[in-house]
Amino acid sequence: MTLALEQAARGLGRTAPNPPVGCVVVQEEVVVGRGFHPRAGEPHAEVFALRDAGERARGGTAYVTLEPCSHHGRTPPCADALIAAGVRRVVVAALDPNPLVAGRGVQRLRDAGIEVTVGALEAQAARQQAGFRSLIMRGRPWVVAKYAMTLDGKVAALNESNGAVSGSQARERTMRWRDELDAIAVGSGTLGLDNPALTTRGVSGGRDPRPVVFDRRAASDPQARAWRDGAVLVTAPDANAAAHESAGITVQRAGSLPDALSGLAGLGISSVLLEGGPTLLSAFFAQGLVDEVRVFLSPTLLGAGLSPLTGPTRPMHEAQALRDVTVETLGPDVLLTGLLQGIPRV
Amino acid sequence: MTLALEQAARGLGRTAPNPPVGCVVVQEEVVVGRGFHPRAGEPHAEVFALRDAGERARGGTAYVTLEPCSHHGRTPPCADALIAAGVRRVVVAALDPNPLVAGRGVQRLRDAGIEVTVGALEAQAARQQAGFRSLIMRGRPWVVAKYAMTLDGKVAALNESNGAVSGSQARERTMRWRDELDAIAVGSGTLGLDNPALTTRGVSGGRDPRPVVFDRRAASDPQARAWRDGAVLVTAPDANAAAHESAGITVQRAGSLPDALSGLAGLGISSVLLEGGPTLLSAFFAQGLVDEVRVFLSPTLLGAGLSPLTGPTRPMHEAQALRDVTVETLGPDVLLTGLLQGIPRV
Repeated sequence: MTLALEQAARGLGRTAPNPPVGCVVVQEEVVVGRGFHPRAGEPHAEVFALRDAGERARGGTAYVTLEPCSHHGRTPPCADALIAAGVRRVVVAALDPNPLVAGRGVQRLRDAGIEVTVGALEAQAARQQAGFRSLIMRGRPWVVAKYAMTLDGKVAALNESNGAVSGSQARERTMRWRDELDAIAVGSGTLGLDNPALTTRGVSGGRDPRPVVFDRRAASDPQARAWRDGAVLVTAPDANAAAHESAGITVQRAGSLPDALSGLAGLGISSVLLEGGPTLLSAFFAQGLVDEVRVFLSPTLLGAGLSPLTGPTRPMHEAQALRDVTVETLGPDVLLTGLLQGIPRV
Repeated sequence: MTLALEQAARGLGRTAPNPPVGCVVVQEEVVVGRGFHPRAGEPHAEVFALRDAGERARGGTAYVTLEPCSHHGRTPPCADALIAAGVRRVVVAALDPNPLVAGRGVQRLRDAGIEVTVGALEAQAARQQAGFRSLIMRGRPWVVAKYAMTLDGKVAALNESNGAVSGSQARERTMRWRDELDAIAVGSGTLGLDNPALTTRGVSGGRDPRPVVFDRRAASDPQARAWRDGAVLVTAPDANAAAHESAGITVQRAGSLPDALSGLAGLGISSVLLEGGPTLLSAFFAQGLVDEVRVFLSPTLLGAGLSPLTGPTRPMHEAQALRDVTVETLGPDVLLTGLLQGIPRV
């Protein structure tokens, strides 16, 4: 299943609104087929893995990171493909929360006499599928907040364009996340101050996430670097976004952040990397809309500066604890990650 | 030498203005004597180790964490004691920066025909002796700033007495530091808000550090819990500290923080644990008077709150980098430590 998860990871950031899925076919303890879902509209992981295995799939075991589908979507049901290929056993990491599947895929395989096991590396699989699960089960993208902070809790100095807080390894990791998540979001303040490109740089085979700019008044420069193909302006229902519209920018109007996230889900965006700044992050956090945080800590002390969060106001005992915390050293920096919300499960 | 450093550690917080020193005597690869300097006025580590070894010291090797003294202070020279005991070889971690010694101890041993090696685990030894070295070489204590911070960089919520930020293991570690450092310092704000005891709790054989309160206006309550025997009020030259003086509190007058630290050195304080709050810490930091930081990171997000540092104002590329950084997981928290100043060396 670890190999199947690795296969699935190759589709991260490419498959929305579909999930990233990987499949490995094993015959007498030898891997004979591998596949992953490369993007929506293309065949599913099982199809590629079965093709790769050919006749060697017969009597073998298929490891799939998500329950094989049982319905005719843009492609025929994968459960049928597995049955037709004559596999003897199917190991599934996680059930598909899609109400069109939700156990029916497993049932279809069992009805055909195939032995099915569910739950192998389920937690890892669910985490990899967080965006898809969020989209299907909550109607909004999985929101990952990322920031780099000094050891005195500052993400930027006062009155200046952002100098880099963390080192090159942290930057490389961020670029990998940009490659893996569907969209990258910033506020109008960050756009105006830094004019960031919001692209994926230095990742072999990488692709850029969709830029999403939260700009209630639609006052940001329509010529800013972030406005490339696929870019989304999220603005107030009554804002004058004529300049952005004529520049070919997708304008998403929303009266609230939850509405804005629903709107992004409607565009097929399943995951968002929230990269700043403090105003936008605080608004998301105060409304419980941050699902996961990834924080780089730089072993430096700045002094006066901007804090990543400026609200809400509450006592220390009501600070929100992260779950599934990981700590990793990345060059001079420390990466701390954790979840604020549970991964949506069936 | 590791054993000798462990011996020395038993004196931490007890020996000022003397250094913590440990000594181990080895005869044919068997440890035959151990000793450490327990407090100023009592014999030095070498004397205890040689007593412990007795006749077995003859022809053996003595490992000492600091160069044996060559002068008559409150006790006779340890170099002489080693010569008299007939040891064949002496291994020294670090030279004594005291101008009365500074190589003369080693010379005296060599003159007596003893083989001397200098530099074994020198960095560890120098770090253990940071307070003594700072006192001798800089005329001020070694200042260790400690704080516990959420993952959004807050040490306290707004408008409330400090709720605990980090967990029980972080608290235990803090108590060990209180036991090991000579003094604990807070500002008048922390004293007024929290009325902290500033004691060492839950450490077997522990003793309390000297409480030092920075209170420019001498406006703090002379009945606060921190004012126990040995407590020091640091205040402005012209402040009215009559109430504190009548309460038996040592009043240290200083027109600046460097002067205040010189004054504390004059009281024999070689190391200070700076525990808060942000105003005091920022003042120390802005003047380059923080030598070491120890930060507990709690994997929680608060929102609005107090930052550990509020100044100085400068661009991000001038943030001050820590050296000799360590990262350790302590229960749910992460402990990050590092040096802002080099350990004073000969």
